[in-house]
Amino acid sequence: MGANTFGIHFCLTTFGESHGEAIGGVIDGCPSGLTIDFDMIDEELRRRRTGTNSAMSQRKESDKVIFLSGIFEGKTLGTPIAFMVRNEDARPSDYDDIKDIYRPSHSDFTYQQKYGIRDHRGGGRSSARALLPCVVAGSIAKQILSSYNISISSYVTQIGEARSEAFSAEEIMSILDDVKKEKDSVGAVVRVEVDNVPVGVGEPYFRKLQSVLAQAMFSINAVKGFEYGEGFRAASMRGSECNDVFVNSDGVIRTASNHSGGIQGGISNGEKVWFNVAFKPIPTIMRPQQTVDVKGDEVVYDVEGRHDVCAVPRALPVVESMTAMAILDLLIH
Amino acid sequence: MGANTFGIHFCLTTFGESHGEAIGGVIDGCPSGLTIDFDMIDEELRRRRTGTNSAMSQRKESDKVIFLSGIFEGKTLGTPIAFMVRNEDARPSDYDDIKDIYRPSHSDFTYQQKYGIRDHRGGGRSSARALLPCVVAGSIAKQILSSYNISISSYVTQIGEARSEAFSAEEIMSILDDVKKEKDSVGAVVRVEVDNVPVGVGEPYFRKLQSVLAQAMFSINAVKGFEYGEGFRAASMRGSECNDVFVNSDGVIRTASNHSGGIQGGISNGEKVWFNVAFKPIPTIMRPQQTVDVKGDEVVYDVEGRHDVCAVPRALPVVESMTAMAILDLLIH
Amino acid sequence: MGANTFGIHFCLTTFGESHGEAIGGVIDGCPSGLTIDFDMIDEELRRRRTGTNSAMSQRKESDKVIFLSGIFEGKTLGTPIAFMVRNEDARPSDYDDIKDIYRPSHSDFTYQQKYGIRDHRGGGRSSARALLPCVVAGSIAKQILSSYNISISSYVTQIGEARSEAFSAEEIMSILDDVKKEKDSVGAVVRVEVDNVPVGVGEPYFRKLQSVLAQAMFSINAVKGFEYGEGFRAASMRGSECNDVFVNSDGVIRTASNHSGGIQGGISNGEKVWFNVAFKPIPTIMRPQQTVDVKGDEVVYDVEGRHDVCAVPRALPVVESMTAMAILDLLIH
Amino acid sequence: MGANTFGIHFCLTTFGESHGEAIGGVIDGCPSGLTIDFDMIDEELRRRRTGTNSAMSQRKESDKVIFLSGIFEGKTLGTPIAFMVRNEDARPSDYDDIKDIYRPSHSDFTYQQKYGIRDHRGGGRSSARALLPCVVAGSIAKQILSSYNISISSYVTQIGEARSEAFSAEEIMSILDDVKKEKDSVGAVVRVEVDNVPVGVGEPYFRKLQSVLAQAMFSINAVKGFEYGEGFRAASMRGSECNDVFVNSDGVIRTASNHSGGIQGGISNGEKVWFNVAFKPIPTIMRPQQTVDVKGDEVVYDVEGRHDVCAVPRALPVVESMTAMAILDLLIH
Repeated sequence: MGANTFGIHFCLTTFGESHGEAIGGVIDGCPSGLTIDFDMIDEELRRRRTGTNSAMSQRKESDKVIFLSGIFEGKTLGTPIAFMVRNEDARPSDYDDIKDIYRPSHSDFTYQQKYGIRDHRGGGRSSARALLPCVVAGSIAKQILSSYNISISSYVTQIGEARSEAFSAEEIMSILDDVKKEKDSVGAVVRVEVDNVPVGVGEPYFRKLQSVLAQAMFSINAVKGFEYGEGFRAASMRGSECNDVFVNSDGVIRTASNHSGGIQGGISNGEKVWFNVAFKPIPTIMRPQQTVDVKGDEVVYDVEGRHDVCAVPRALPVVESMTAMAILDLLIH
Repeated sequence: MGANTFGIHFCLTTFGESHGEAIGGVIDGCPSGLTIDFDMIDEELRRRRTGTNSAMSQRKESDKVIFLSGIFEGKTLGTPIAFMVRNEDARPSDYDDIKDIYRPSHSDFTYQQKYGIRDHRGGGRSSARALLPCVVAGSIAKQILSSYNISISSYVTQIGEARSEAFSAEEIMSILDDVKKEKDSVGAVVRVEVDNVPVGVGEPYFRKLQSVLAQAMFSINAVKGFEYGEGFRAASMRGSECNDVFVNSDGVIRTASNHSGGIQGGISNGEKVWFNVAFKPIPTIMRPQQTVDVKGDEVVYDVEGRHDVCAVPRALPVVESMTAMAILDLLIH
Repeated sequence: MGANTFGIHFCLTTFGESHGEAIGGVIDGCPSGLTIDFDMIDEELRRRRTGTNSAMSQRKESDKVIFLSGIFEGKTLGTPIAFMVRNEDARPSDYDDIKDIYRPSHSDFTYQQKYGIRDHRGGGRSSARALLPCVVAGSIAKQILSSYNISISSYVTQIGEARSEAFSAEEIMSILDDVKKEKDSVGAVVRVEVDNVPVGVGEPYFRKLQSVLAQAMFSINAVKGFEYGEGFRAASMRGSECNDVFVNSDGVIRTASNHSGGIQGGISNGEKVWFNVAFKPIPTIMRPQQTVDVKGDEVVYDVEGRHDVCAVPRALPVVESMTAMAILDLLIH
Repeated sequence: MGANTFGIHFCLTTFGESHGEAIGGVIDGCPSGLTIDFDMIDEELRRRRTGTNSAMSQRKESDKVIFLSGIFEGKTLGTPIAFMVRNEDARPSDYDDIKDIYRPSHSDFTYQQKYGIRDHRGGGRSSARALLPCVVAGSIAKQILSSYNISISSYVTQIGEARSEAFSAEEIMSILDDVKKEKDSVGAVVRVEVDNVPVGVGEPYFRKLQSVLAQAMFSINAVKGFEYGEGFRAASMRGSECNDVFVNSDGVIRTASNHSGGIQGGISNGEKVWFNVAFKPIPTIMRPQQTVDVKGDEVVYDVEGRHDVCAVPRALPVVESMTAMAILDLLIH
């Protein structure tokens, strides 16, 4: 199976470099006869494109999705659904400054070493833009999940040192503006909650629900950590406080607490599935940084232009999309 | 691909319930012509079986591995290597107390709901004993990795509230003995370090090194969190402190720091690969707990016998084994 | 995915050399809650072991299947079903005559070249005995298919130059005895018919029903050809005679003829699925043959002992088993 | 793994309906740093498009391949290579005559039954046009194989009742013109030869060289039979005539004959790999045929327009392409 394919039953194969002809994907295994809500896909792409406001990167992308196959008269055929988004033109010279440099904590170096060649323009395949196809496919996955009454939501719960269960968009932007003024970037934590996952989703031993979710999350650029339920906090806990005791709730077996994050033994238990995802700071910062060029000479790398200072909130639709595909793939097994 | 198979090139398929006839596995894709060090496998199994001392569970298991195929005159044939360990006899009546009960934070409930049937004896397939085949295969993976000079080590860095980069075995046992006296269990964090991973291991987009490591770690019972490099700490950091700048170190391109955990863009960069794994407390505790039985009636569950109070240190060889298989699978791609 | 695994949903991983410790397999993906008919499995193994009589190879094998996991109180658990059959002891010296020789049209040479090592005893992994696990898994597949009312039958339709739609066992044995007297071996054709395959089985583009059946058949030793429906005869036909016109048969859409073999566009159409499989003559014959040894020296190879002279009728249960697994794997998709 | 993906290491995922927006594919696993010969791809597509002359279907297709990703400055990046060919406009009304009819021996019926929906225009996904992406990917595979000195050739050896090892293009066209005048279609056999396959290609047990080749061939529309080496003729043969004895040919171990088709035990033996593929007659014929419509009513189906009367010679580049991908996928394992 190719490394650019996610999923076994609802399979997404993605392609595309940031400044190549197009980026896109092929969904294989989508059920037939579904009416696709194209507006919802566009709305999800808009969420990814703009974040919530001015602190976000200003690349003007129309991100118009063109469906190439698998849909007939608005309905899925059961055949592969291919789609693409054309990349806007950029003059090659726009990227001459990074052509021969390995930017710190970017993947210029590892791609060059692994493949012996790389498309340096905008990070090529390793650009966050390469996640766009995940949002298209994830949006379709969400539409299918909604027919099972399964819904996914995500929240920023930490930006740098600031923690909150209920950040407002204004608070987030205020923090990011401060970081921007300091010509720096910052990390974040996102919390995801999935409601109404039925009991039984997840396949021991190696396709446990948490394993597939983790694989999905670590596919996202800048993700450094994943924990479900109490996660790393569980390491500090005693069994007597961390266990979820079963109760009979009006004839339904439920757990009295949900430290487990809705998963036991790799299988959903009917409670809310919840987990946290940690993002490192965006590696591009508006300060001069020491690095080396492709010849190995030490040089100073100084960025121009406008760049995001934090992966969130733009990453939220990506996180939700990967979550949707992970759960759908196990659900329709 | 079956859910009980890990890996694409060095593939392990595991089988077995805790008290069935045997547990074991089949390794497909092991290179031919290797001389297997059987003593090293036995030693790794001993590490898993005994932990370091008396706080550990007392099940008497000889864990003798019987190789069924794939090895001829001590050398691998390139054909599937099947192996098994017979389970010691247990009287079915030994498990009558849990036959009709859903133990809190165990997977009795989810297995029963998913499959409509379960082998209740000792947790059946969800027993930690089902990880034993991973240690056999992981030991062989380690032997192969050592021919590449790649070595894996793991340490307990946290038990409950206690944190240390250098716990002694005595300290660990002292903490666990205290927990045991309180008839409770406790969580832990394990740190893993992999030395000499060459540049280029990991396959964007969906088989990134961190994705495969995460999938591997979450296959292990009781694991609740995985982070690599700075992990969740990176969420609190600024780009200016988290970035790893490149330097020319005697003609070799290296990074001056290693917040990245040896991975950039999903591909190893030649630095030490390091990550942390969080374990929840063992759910079995020596106190009465509220729960429900299979009919949905609320009952009190009170355990007898001797049980582990912490996943570590017994989990260390399992963590290392899954790490070895993850890296080998990507390395021999 | 390992090369020793067949199927994606009902997955069989096989292992074992002819004279290693054991041969066997692991079935992953078998539905839970099934009551296994062990006698039926034994009967299928008996068919494979003995063919119909004295022309068959005389190796005394008890072929007792030992189930190691996945079955609890006679029912499938939904977890991997591992099983093995121990190989009877053979003195290594029994095979000294072929240890250093590449037998004509056997795979001694290709295994040695590919792996740099081989288990020469009885052909090792390339022995027809390595198909035994397919019969175990195929028997279980047949049991599941029978719950869908799907049944599989196979017939010998050609042995050497002799062709018949209705060979009796006596006729077959008479032909084989003649071949045996001539110290030679002979090829054969087997016809397979599968009744009651529902419409819709098969997955374009690359998992078409005929593709999966073909992959299955060519897994069987000595198979040289596969054709479905009219097969190679269709090459001689005109469209006007080969087309299957649709008719309305009491409200059900059927085809008036079945040149297509029950498959159109890779998908079953509800008619009988039928196909033919060609076997080459068994390469071991009781005559001296020219060959080379492992050093490349030309030598004469002269066989002792008793050997089959034809793959059939012993191959019939193997053919049916692979058919059952192919259809089941696509059916439960 | 999706059913529209072929290969494990050199993976092609195809998409597209005959009259949808575009058809195309994504190649995952192509080595990096290759200079692509685009002219050769165009030439292979031209072979597929036109066959050799006037008996061929007259659809005017420019078949211009647009590469969307994975190639930078003419070289492969090691990332997914996506490509597409836009479908020429067709008025929907052009296909009104077959919208509600199940054409005999086409897959209208099976697609409709399986998916509950179908794109009827030109056969939709089941059109032979959907094989075009295989030719693009297969051409790239051929280019890579040529660097190993491996070459593939194919010949028409039978058309209807006519058999020849050396049909000229004129002879083929003459036969097809006759068939056309009779308003009929006809089947054919193609022979494929692969030179310079090194010893060791093929993976027992279930990814044997012949198994993968067979899966590849049966992916092609209208293919009804596959045999390698002597194939079905081997069924008529004695071991003494079918065996390939080994000889020492100037220090190289070779076989004196090649009845085996270059494969023993599923692994190439260094001799020429050769096999035959049988095609049924094109199901569309210029005569009225009985059939049923989607409501189940019996109707007469009468075709207009111009259609191929035989799958060959247009199928030759498709056969070669699938062969190239099958061998490459096993070779770079």
